[in-house]
Amino acid sequence: MAIKMDNRLQEPLQVKENGELRYEIHFLNTFSGLADELQKLGYPADVKACIVADSNTAPLYADAVKEELEKAFGKAVVFLLPAGEPSKTLEHIEDLYEFLIQEHFERRDFLVALGGGVVGDMTGFAAATYLRGIDFIQVPTTLLAMVDSSIGGKTGVDFRGHKNMVGAFYMPKLVYMDLSTLKTLPQRELSCGMAEVIKYGYTFDAPFLSILKGSPDKVFSYDLPFLAQMIYRCCNYKRTVVEEDPREKGRRALLNFGHTIGHAVEKLKKFTLLHGECVSIGMAAAIYLSMKKGYLAESDLDGCRELASLYHLPTEVQADGFNAEDVLKTLKSDKKMSAGKVRFILLKKAGEGFIDHSLSDEELLDAIHSVLKE
Amino acid sequence: MAIKMDNRLQEPLQVKENGELRYEIHFLNTFSGLADELQKLGYPADVKACIVADSNTAPLYADAVKEELEKAFGKAVVFLLPAGEPSKTLEHIEDLYEFLIQEHFERRDFLVALGGGVVGDMTGFAAATYLRGIDFIQVPTTLLAMVDSSIGGKTGVDFRGHKNMVGAFYMPKLVYMDLSTLKTLPQRELSCGMAEVIKYGYTFDAPFLSILKGSPDKVFSYDLPFLAQMIYRCCNYKRTVVEEDPREKGRRALLNFGHTIGHAVEKLKKFTLLHGECVSIGMAAAIYLSMKKGYLAESDLDGCRELASLYHLPTEVQADGFNAEDVLKTLKSDKKMSAGKVRFILLKKAGEGFIDHSLSDEELLDAIHSVLKE
Repeated sequence: MAIKMDNRLQEPLQVKENGELRYEIHFLNTFSGLADELQKLGYPADVKACIVADSNTAPLYADAVKEELEKAFGKAVVFLLPAGEPSKTLEHIEDLYEFLIQEHFERRDFLVALGGGVVGDMTGFAAATYLRGIDFIQVPTTLLAMVDSSIGGKTGVDFRGHKNMVGAFYMPKLVYMDLSTLKTLPQRELSCGMAEVIKYGYTFDAPFLSILKGSPDKVFSYDLPFLAQMIYRCCNYKRTVVEEDPREKGRRALLNFGHTIGHAVEKLKKFTLLHGECVSIGMAAAIYLSMKKGYLAESDLDGCRELASLYHLPTEVQADGFNAEDVLKTLKSDKKMSAGKVRFILLKKAGEGFIDHSLSDEELLDAIHSVLKE
Repeated sequence: MAIKMDNRLQEPLQVKENGELRYEIHFLNTFSGLADELQKLGYPADVKACIVADSNTAPLYADAVKEELEKAFGKAVVFLLPAGEPSKTLEHIEDLYEFLIQEHFERRDFLVALGGGVVGDMTGFAAATYLRGIDFIQVPTTLLAMVDSSIGGKTGVDFRGHKNMVGAFYMPKLVYMDLSTLKTLPQRELSCGMAEVIKYGYTFDAPFLSILKGSPDKVFSYDLPFLAQMIYRCCNYKRTVVEEDPREKGRRALLNFGHTIGHAVEKLKKFTLLHGECVSIGMAAAIYLSMKKGYLAESDLDGCRELASLYHLPTEVQADGFNAEDVLKTLKSDKKMSAGKVRFILLKKAGEGFIDHSLSDEELLDAIHSVLKE
């Protein structure tokens, strides 16, 4: 079935590599049209699709996506993952390999990541490594996955408590968003997505911050036209950065704004806080540090805290069973290191991030203390 | 230390991708010069190197390579794998990840695969997936790794008995061969390498087969100038095919000549036969089938058996606990399938392989019976 124009909430975005089209991002309010887009990519009718979804998303959408795929392709099967970051392990990837072997998946078949960031990262990694690489597509159903993790080809799993320690850069063949799925997203998950949205504002786009300041009502009332514009704007930044620097050798690291301290907190809180909540805390720390370095004013820090609170995001964290030194140690064991120095994203001003390698342990500890309630 | 010209046994080969140089293959009679080549690639003095070697190779060469690397770089560490195909598992890859984390390896650091095919495939896969990809170089010390597995970027591990089921296409930054290491290679391993050498003859180069027919003495007396010419000739074929078809969508599959039935036998014999021995058996079956299809004569099959026996390679296998049907079933569960059909390499004539998808189960069983002693 061809997609009706009024099912498209935004025009598709094209993601290129070395100037050549690699994949498109589609913004719709329906799953109808997914099979059509896949047929346009040239998949023949006898390929098999494996939909990977977690225990939250599968009951809501797996049947609809399976039915849509079976309109065009012979066989679609569903592989279920337990929901949540603790499932993001090699053990679950091995279960998926085993399932694919049993279902006789070959190099020509493909995987469908249906869900949030964890499902997308894991499905992408399984696709990157099963039979030395088969195709996969992203069908994100959370705001966080739509604005961030479904684009750019970062895939992977956590390894023995180290976040995203094992993975691959591996591009999807298509990113297809049905934005109406956001309506079933719990408010806490929506807020988490907003942390990544706010990140784009601070790093690239100060006017966007002003818009976001006036928009919590639209977001929390699931205003689809507004959400579509907002998501498109984020995807367009992500696309631009990823095109410039696909392997994160330079500028792509800007997207880690808020993630350095954020990841460390996420780990030390044993994933009781969600990723977006930790990013929000990390952004507050990074803005504090940018202020201490003389780039930002006290009012910027206040503004950041206000914006976070409008979206029900924390900017402080209770230290239970760990202290600032532990956060520092944990962030140094993360992979954002270069020649033993921490790679940290600071702001020259709101809307202009830059990469810094010069921070001392004292400065980092000061920033950690600014968000840690001990 | 710069490499003296008389340490070079052949000129370097360049492997390109989309017309651009990706890495070079160097043929020497010493490890001195490895640090020099790495410095030419631009690695700074403070990067770390992890030498991965197995329990056979490490006692012989790990110290020499470590010493050579430490001439140029701050730190080189050694990670030991148990020798043999049964070690080619994700569990051992996880041990390597853990070691790299403990040694604080970052994206800028690199791995060195020192050894045969198993070590090369595993090290490459760990490099492809640790921190979403770090550099690695191949320092092959077996004939099989020199002529085949160290070139072309196929990396991976076996998974629950399925050979190379999990892996990635991931290119090394350098392939550096010290051919004098062949002198410590057991004769059985040398023979296994010769199976892959013979494969190039049958698939691409009939005159090469005539040369090989007259050369067992040179090979088994470890005649380095002859071996260097022979290895160079194989690497040059591999390079050409890999450049044309890096992801094995087409022509690269020719390199699987002998491997379809070979892999199935290898698995059913529970790795008591070595890879090259199984490839030799698989080549005999493929030549039998090429004869049955009217491409080759009976004398070609005799010639293949003679050549194999000159290099102490088997062309038959004892069926213990399995039968021809089991071989067929196992071969169909391998990854050389396309749309449910077996992809099989046949010969139009000696020196000219082609890809066939049309073989019936009866034909495959007939070929299996031709090499199976029941």
